[in-house]
Amino acid sequence: MKKIGLVGFGCVGQGLYLLLSGAGYDNAVIKRIIVKNRDKTRIAPSEIIGYDIEELLEDPEIDIIVEAIDDAEWAYEVARKTLVSGKQFVTANKKLVASHLEELTALAKINNSIFRYEAAVCGAIPVVQTIDNYFAYEPIYNLRGIFNGTSNYILSKIFQEKLEYKLALKQAQDLGFAETDPTSDVGGYDAKYKLIILTLHSFGVYFKPDEVVNFGIEYLTADDIKFAQNKNLKIKLVPTVYQQDQKIAAFVIPEFVSSTDSLFNIEQEFNGVSVEAGFAGPQFLFGRGAGSFPTATAVLSDIQHVVDGRQYLYTKSKTPLERLDEKNIFLEIYVRYTEDAVKKIIPFESITEGLITPQSHQLVGYVSLKDLKNIAHLLKRERVSVIATGRRKVKAPSTKFGLVHALSEKA
Amino acid sequence: MKKIGLVGFGCVGQGLYLLLSGAGYDNAVIKRIIVKNRDKTRIAPSEIIGYDIEELLEDPEIDIIVEAIDDAEWAYEVARKTLVSGKQFVTANKKLVASHLEELTALAKINNSIFRYEAAVCGAIPVVQTIDNYFAYEPIYNLRGIFNGTSNYILSKIFQEKLEYKLALKQAQDLGFAETDPTSDVGGYDAKYKLIILTLHSFGVYFKPDEVVNFGIEYLTADDIKFAQNKNLKIKLVPTVYQQDQKIAAFVIPEFVSSTDSLFNIEQEFNGVSVEAGFAGPQFLFGRGAGSFPTATAVLSDIQHVVDGRQYLYTKSKTPLERLDEKNIFLEIYVRYTEDAVKKIIPFESITEGLITPQSHQLVGYVSLKDLKNIAHLLKRERVSVIATGRRKVKAPSTKFGLVHALSEKA
Repeated sequence: MKKIGLVGFGCVGQGLYLLLSGAGYDNAVIKRIIVKNRDKTRIAPSEIIGYDIEELLEDPEIDIIVEAIDDAEWAYEVARKTLVSGKQFVTANKKLVASHLEELTALAKINNSIFRYEAAVCGAIPVVQTIDNYFAYEPIYNLRGIFNGTSNYILSKIFQEKLEYKLALKQAQDLGFAETDPTSDVGGYDAKYKLIILTLHSFGVYFKPDEVVNFGIEYLTADDIKFAQNKNLKIKLVPTVYQQDQKIAAFVIPEFVSSTDSLFNIEQEFNGVSVEAGFAGPQFLFGRGAGSFPTATAVLSDIQHVVDGRQYLYTKSKTPLERLDEKNIFLEIYVRYTEDAVKKIIPFESITEGLITPQSHQLVGYVSLKDLKNIAHLLKRERVSVIATGRRKVKAPSTKFGLVHALSEKA
Repeated sequence: MKKIGLVGFGCVGQGLYLLLSGAGYDNAVIKRIIVKNRDKTRIAPSEIIGYDIEELLEDPEIDIIVEAIDDAEWAYEVARKTLVSGKQFVTANKKLVASHLEELTALAKINNSIFRYEAAVCGAIPVVQTIDNYFAYEPIYNLRGIFNGTSNYILSKIFQEKLEYKLALKQAQDLGFAETDPTSDVGGYDAKYKLIILTLHSFGVYFKPDEVVNFGIEYLTADDIKFAQNKNLKIKLVPTVYQQDQKIAAFVIPEFVSSTDSLFNIEQEFNGVSVEAGFAGPQFLFGRGAGSFPTATAVLSDIQHVVDGRQYLYTKSKTPLERLDEKNIFLEIYVRYTEDAVKKIIPFESITEGLITPQSHQLVGYVSLKDLKNIAHLLKRERVSVIATGRRKVKAPSTKFGLVHALSEKA
């Protein structure tokens, strides 16, 4: 029986502890739990609680270190030290994995350690292992989904119960679905970390977090919701990566989705992943994206993989795809802004439709991914809603501006 | 590199051949293909085509035999001979697996062979391995889905295009989705075989095909469709297995599904599997249930598992659940029949609603699973539509018959 050293005893750690205590699982057991706070009452016996990760590293009986802490810096330290020690490392920390994926996989390889992170992506949905293993030998064309339960919960409240964004966020915070500082969730960062991890396994390409543009749902207003509902659409926060001619592009942008989209009916805190594969065709996985036991299920699966000596395959990394030139990818996006000055910072190549009123400017048009990335900080500063329609073109579209654009030019 | 002997070169076999030729997969290669018909033109070079499976069994270079033939008797012979020989065995044949699951898994164990059948259940959806592996250490409460693409295709045509059953079946046959004798698909047998396989991996219980009642879609009429559409429901063919107090029951019955059901939007030939797990919560998997490349994807995954030396875990078989007493399970079902005599053979415990016209009797009420099983052959002989509402009770409900039942008694 393998011995586990657990670092962190919050939501995920406690779920794992209870699951291992109760499920009759006898391939591994938690020997010691390292926490920071000495004053909290713990559901585990105090004899197995410690305060220094060196204890785990120095204990030759401990085979696997499971990291389930919030502190990204500490997690990074635990990760490096564990992998260098040659012990196996399992984490649920998406930011850690996405930010240091190259270094940590290299460390694991050099030290012959197993490094797994199923729980870092979409909670209970076994998507990392499915992409890594089941789709190891066939091309993936497209991967998108709902990876962030908090923002999806808020969007559900907005669309189903007509709540305003701020009130929906408050509810999510009261229920513990959203942090006091919700930026990582509602700003699309959390979803981006998950996208980065799946992109490596799907296409063999590692994007650093800074290289992928992310827009969130925090600037949505009632006008945006009305715009969507008038067209029978919903708005979802949709991380997307796709390939074209063996080259890929990735971005995180809220998207209008129609009722025929597999993401349309994913509500509340649930997650879903939609994959278009070369031979298998379309696949869709749905499940709980967060929560104590759902996340612990994914951690336990990693532990069992470690027991079986199974590292991820990283098959796609042997022949990684290239990146699409982002200046040649045109995404059709909707923007809504109030400040007239903002319009001038959006370098639309063409405008598809638009509505200009004294209160609100709503424009739909094509912008290159490169331009969008360059002006992202300005759009965020000005609290502009940015929502993708899902349509894109590869080359520069014709710049035949319509009446609406002419209007907007005059405005 | 492992050497594969392929038996059968139809839709699945050719898909696998093309996939292995083109995908840059270098862990295994097809060495020889055994077919029955000597006169067909083949897409593989004639040097690797043979006509006798003994060739494969006697060739020490061949590690894995992949069986992809229609003939159930021949498949059974290939399965037994392969496993006895100690070679590894991969099959896409659901009837073979479901009918001989106990014997074949025992043979595999005795001979230390690996026996895998991912492609036998829901084509490209990696559901057998996900249930067997990812859910190995947590209880499953409920598993249901759409497992048969042919009947789902026909139901989509009926509901979306208002086609009559016979015309929809004809279209499915013309497109190659349905066999000349469609009984296995439209009668619920194919779905039952898949349910039996998943039941073993989910609950450790093996039902023989005769032990699971199956109703199909072949007797649906316009009246049944109208009944569903008036309530904004669709009819889907839904194999179901669930546990209650550590005991399980399984059946295949068309079901009325509402728009909040994850099966509602599965249309055409697609499949979906909905799982309710103890810790992970609800999960849903969607993908192509059939077709050359999708099925070959699943076969390739099995081949890779064989290359890695990985047999299924069958964790649940170590502590198999018991069976629910079927006389205490009451399913609410809808029946529609024209012959007045039929009414007397349905031992309703209670009737929920009903409509009696001279042309058609439509009744909804509770029947025990045991009674339903006992009269299934009569209902089929009389071409009675049987559709479950999805509601069930465990103990005998009160036998307070309503007005409708009184009416039906008089009729």
